[in-house]
Amino acid sequence: MAILRSTLDFLLYDWLNAASLNERERFADHSRETFDAVLDTCERIAREKYAPFNRLVDTQEPHFDGEKVILPQATLDANRAYAESGMLSAAQDYEEGGMQLPYTIEAAANGFFGLASVSIGSSLLTKGNANLLLVHGTETQKAVFARNEFNGRFSGTMCLSEPQAGSSLSDITTRAVPDGADFEADPLGARYRLKGNKMWISAGEHELTENIVHLVLAKVPGPDGKLIPGTRGISLFIVPKKMVDAQGQLIGVRNDVALAGLNHKLGWRGTTNTLLNFGEGKFPVNGEAGAVGYLVGRPHEGLRCMFHMMNEARIGVGTAAVMLGLAGYYASLDYAKNRPQGRPMGPAGKDPTQPPVRIIEHADVKRMLLAQKSYGEGALALELYCARLVDEQHTGTPEGADDARLLLEVLTPIAKSWPSEWCLEANSLAIQIHGGYGYTRDFPVEQYWRDNRLNMIHEGTHGIQATDLLGRKVLMENGKGLQLLAGRINATIERAIQVPELAAHANALGQALAQVGAATKAAWATGEPTDALANAVPYMQAFGHTVLAWIWLDVALAAHAAADGAARTGRLAAMRFFFHYELPKIGAWLQVVSNRDQTCAALPEEAF
Amino acid sequence: MAILRSTLDFLLYDWLNAASLNERERFADHSRETFDAVLDTCERIAREKYAPFNRLVDTQEPHFDGEKVILPQATLDANRAYAESGMLSAAQDYEEGGMQLPYTIEAAANGFFGLASVSIGSSLLTKGNANLLLVHGTETQKAVFARNEFNGRFSGTMCLSEPQAGSSLSDITTRAVPDGADFEADPLGARYRLKGNKMWISAGEHELTENIVHLVLAKVPGPDGKLIPGTRGISLFIVPKKMVDAQGQLIGVRNDVALAGLNHKLGWRGTTNTLLNFGEGKFPVNGEAGAVGYLVGRPHEGLRCMFHMMNEARIGVGTAAVMLGLAGYYASLDYAKNRPQGRPMGPAGKDPTQPPVRIIEHADVKRMLLAQKSYGEGALALELYCARLVDEQHTGTPEGADDARLLLEVLTPIAKSWPSEWCLEANSLAIQIHGGYGYTRDFPVEQYWRDNRLNMIHEGTHGIQATDLLGRKVLMENGKGLQLLAGRINATIERAIQVPELAAHANALGQALAQVGAATKAAWATGEPTDALANAVPYMQAFGHTVLAWIWLDVALAAHAAADGAARTGRLAAMRFFFHYELPKIGAWLQVVSNRDQTCAALPEEAF
Repeated sequence: MAILRSTLDFLLYDWLNAASLNERERFADHSRETFDAVLDTCERIAREKYAPFNRLVDTQEPHFDGEKVILPQATLDANRAYAESGMLSAAQDYEEGGMQLPYTIEAAANGFFGLASVSIGSSLLTKGNANLLLVHGTETQKAVFARNEFNGRFSGTMCLSEPQAGSSLSDITTRAVPDGADFEADPLGARYRLKGNKMWISAGEHELTENIVHLVLAKVPGPDGKLIPGTRGISLFIVPKKMVDAQGQLIGVRNDVALAGLNHKLGWRGTTNTLLNFGEGKFPVNGEAGAVGYLVGRPHEGLRCMFHMMNEARIGVGTAAVMLGLAGYYASLDYAKNRPQGRPMGPAGKDPTQPPVRIIEHADVKRMLLAQKSYGEGALALELYCARLVDEQHTGTPEGADDARLLLEVLTPIAKSWPSEWCLEANSLAIQIHGGYGYTRDFPVEQYWRDNRLNMIHEGTHGIQATDLLGRKVLMENGKGLQLLAGRINATIERAIQVPELAAHANALGQALAQVGAATKAAWATGEPTDALANAVPYMQAFGHTVLAWIWLDVALAAHAAADGAARTGRLAAMRFFFHYELPKIGAWLQVVSNRDQTCAALPEEAF
Repeated sequence: MAILRSTLDFLLYDWLNAASLNERERFADHSRETFDAVLDTCERIAREKYAPFNRLVDTQEPHFDGEKVILPQATLDANRAYAESGMLSAAQDYEEGGMQLPYTIEAAANGFFGLASVSIGSSLLTKGNANLLLVHGTETQKAVFARNEFNGRFSGTMCLSEPQAGSSLSDITTRAVPDGADFEADPLGARYRLKGNKMWISAGEHELTENIVHLVLAKVPGPDGKLIPGTRGISLFIVPKKMVDAQGQLIGVRNDVALAGLNHKLGWRGTTNTLLNFGEGKFPVNGEAGAVGYLVGRPHEGLRCMFHMMNEARIGVGTAAVMLGLAGYYASLDYAKNRPQGRPMGPAGKDPTQPPVRIIEHADVKRMLLAQKSYGEGALALELYCARLVDEQHTGTPEGADDARLLLEVLTPIAKSWPSEWCLEANSLAIQIHGGYGYTRDFPVEQYWRDNRLNMIHEGTHGIQATDLLGRKVLMENGKGLQLLAGRINATIERAIQVPELAAHANALGQALAQVGAATKAAWATGEPTDALANAVPYMQAFGHTVLAWIWLDVALAAHAAADGAARTGRLAAMRFFFHYELPKIGAWLQVVSNRDQTCAALPEEAF
């Protein structure tokens, strides 16, 4: 964790100048000292309450004893320690009990938990849930649900997917009907009864908190009793696991939400993942089947409300992927420094009477370590950059805030997808460095690899991110988001081209940016989505590598300006690695995009 | 399995012309009918005795009850069915009880077992062990050990690695000393006592067979009692788990070989993997500690003997990786054809009242399917091509046999490494197609991915294969192996350039070959191994992609000549996929090779 801390210090203070955030009114009480105190606390809790139990939560998977979902005591302890630290509400207003911490610092500090044990906690969903209610909920809903989530009494879920619909939310069939003639008079919000199944619900059932606040997408039938097709028909409801009164106290009545099954996963096993039945009558409320739910926001606007928090959720997934990548890097670095095996290449290695060297002295092991550093630290910088944009969106000048919003629209698919793919690759390299030992469960790296495989799937798959990027984000507002990003990239190029050590990389980045721009145009040359989007994933891969090259060049400018030393040498080398070994890959990806290659899309089903 | 069978039929008969092998004297009794009968039998056994238990052997890992290693009954049944099929000795002479089956057919037929359950059987090591003894053993050793391995009474292991030495065999410390003054008079071979630890021993302890024949590398101390440094000091010994007489009967005495631990692995859990203690005194023989071992071949030539069988072992690993890749492809193809979700792109998809389409209709799913097909079927063709070279080496004209030997030297690192890397990637795509379901243990694809991760590690890691390729194979005999390969590739190009549909790909392959040739020269321009080999893995990746492009172009020639139909369309599309989406990647890999890039190799340890 010490390496992560020094990397965070460099990126936050030397690169992003995060200490200057206290010039903003909202953060005026803060300083580097208060930020450091938050980082210290999180690092300590992660070291004491998370890291020692990462393997335990993998082997002691959640199980259902017929009444309760059983989790290891360590999970309860870790969640309690997190809630007690105040991190659940750190970013909130003082009057909400928060500390008005910048999101940049919150995201950085939360990194320690991902590094220590990515699946033991589930704070991301609880925070996202409560944040959504702060924006779209009534005063009572905020007081009863959001505040009790921020203080750790309740936890939260997001219930979107259904078994038959997966990513296709327009096909959900969970239905909500008004509960009685007085349904609009409930102090907690217009009261409905919900029936349906929700799949892939993380932390959907457990005993970690007094109550669980489910945020559920469902459709209110039209006058003909039919569900409105498409996403327009979707509304959003609060469905508590246990019924509460308007003061947030449990009233001793279970709501009609039942665990239908636990998903047994490849990894990420510290977090319960569930299939939930809403309203099947297992726990009737007032003698009636149907889960009681309270409308959030206006009817039919459920998806808009839900997506409000999507950018931060996706940055959260990206950061989790980064932390797993770095965890593998640190583990394999430690192993490589301590494992003697083999001899150097060339004449020095010919003498078998000499003792073996440590494997970090082998060029190929160094290559695998530097690749991990380049992927992991580069992606960390990207996530912090995005987090800084979130702060800008909330506290910047109107123009700065709007630019930040647009940049986030374009960068979020990359912040989510790129670490999911490349920090997973980093984890595979960490296994490879360990050799046979890496393939055993005696070392942590195989678990990191398994845990990380989730990140290309949840919160929007790779394919969905790619379609979002090429089909929507680079086009929106007449391409203004893409232009803004190009402007930022060009600004970095202009600075770097002045530095002899970086000039060649600045030129390479300029060419890459031009290639991406040309491919974007070529993809859409016919105006047909089927032509453009057939190769959306290769496009996203090339776009992502170009963004990472930019981030690395920008980070390198800060590293170059820093004092000589091993850290500076390492950062500049990781940047060079990215430009020499990675950026040239974009040519192959963009070729099929520019050609609107239909080899895959046009192949008839029977030919597979 | 039906898809695999039709692919094998095409590759064996329409592409490799395997039926003509019966023109060779050794195979004169064979015909396509006898080959088909072998394929039928293996397909049937694999379907009945292997496939239904693949998840079972993953969840019911081998465990040690203090006396015995316990494996599921299904493992015993599968191994018995395999032995009873005669496949253990299929390639052997008639007088050895074999059926003189070409290796090409044996390799193809064994594919079914890899597809059904890669880890349930361990025939590869037993066959390799027995084959080695046929070449290097005495007549008694052949009769007592090899023949009882071929008939399934005994099984075999290869004991090379040690906990402290890993891939670095020169550092092994297992020692063997003559056992008594009459040690050379033993009918089973010169008798030694061995002491030491062997790590990563597959099938090192179990009750599947009457006895286990360990082939063990150990060092005989010099007159000063010290071990000879380096690989020169290594000799090879047969160390049976239970002592046998010269007729191969158990004499009721346990040899001093003890299980020190089972390795608990990420995957491949149907096969026991062990740490063995030799000669620690747990089972003294004649009252004395020390495992009794019988010398094979001459002293100090152990490594040469052991490596005799390395090519076939590596083709075996490559084939296992291929079969896992194809297993994931077939599973995800089936899922994609049956899972409805989402709507088409473009205007047709805007109407939410239309039912969802099956996901195989989405371009990105097709891309992920075609990638898997291209990786899996291309790599299968490569393995069969190498198997055909093994037959050529054994039954061809002297010149043909020598060419085959040299080609195998160059191609084996690719046959081992390429599927290990790219069929693993295929398995990741198979998970991705399944979405969240792919991340659960309710579907088979996550296990394929875990099982396949081993293949880049065992039988020589990726790094070792790459150093072997660029450091030895492309240089050996004045580069004659590389020239031979280039000749074969050019012959394919010359044929393909005549076919309008293939001409552009022929040109692309010609350019790729020229790039690889130039990079090989540039890598060695200074003659310094440290310069050349710093980027041996990227070199191997580019070399492998070029070889696969060649294989695909050659397969496409056969497909092009075949009758119209879905299979022909699919094969030509998989070829085009490889040329459009994959081959262009070699530029990025070769750039660092040609520049002798030292970014990684030169980075000091403290900068990581």
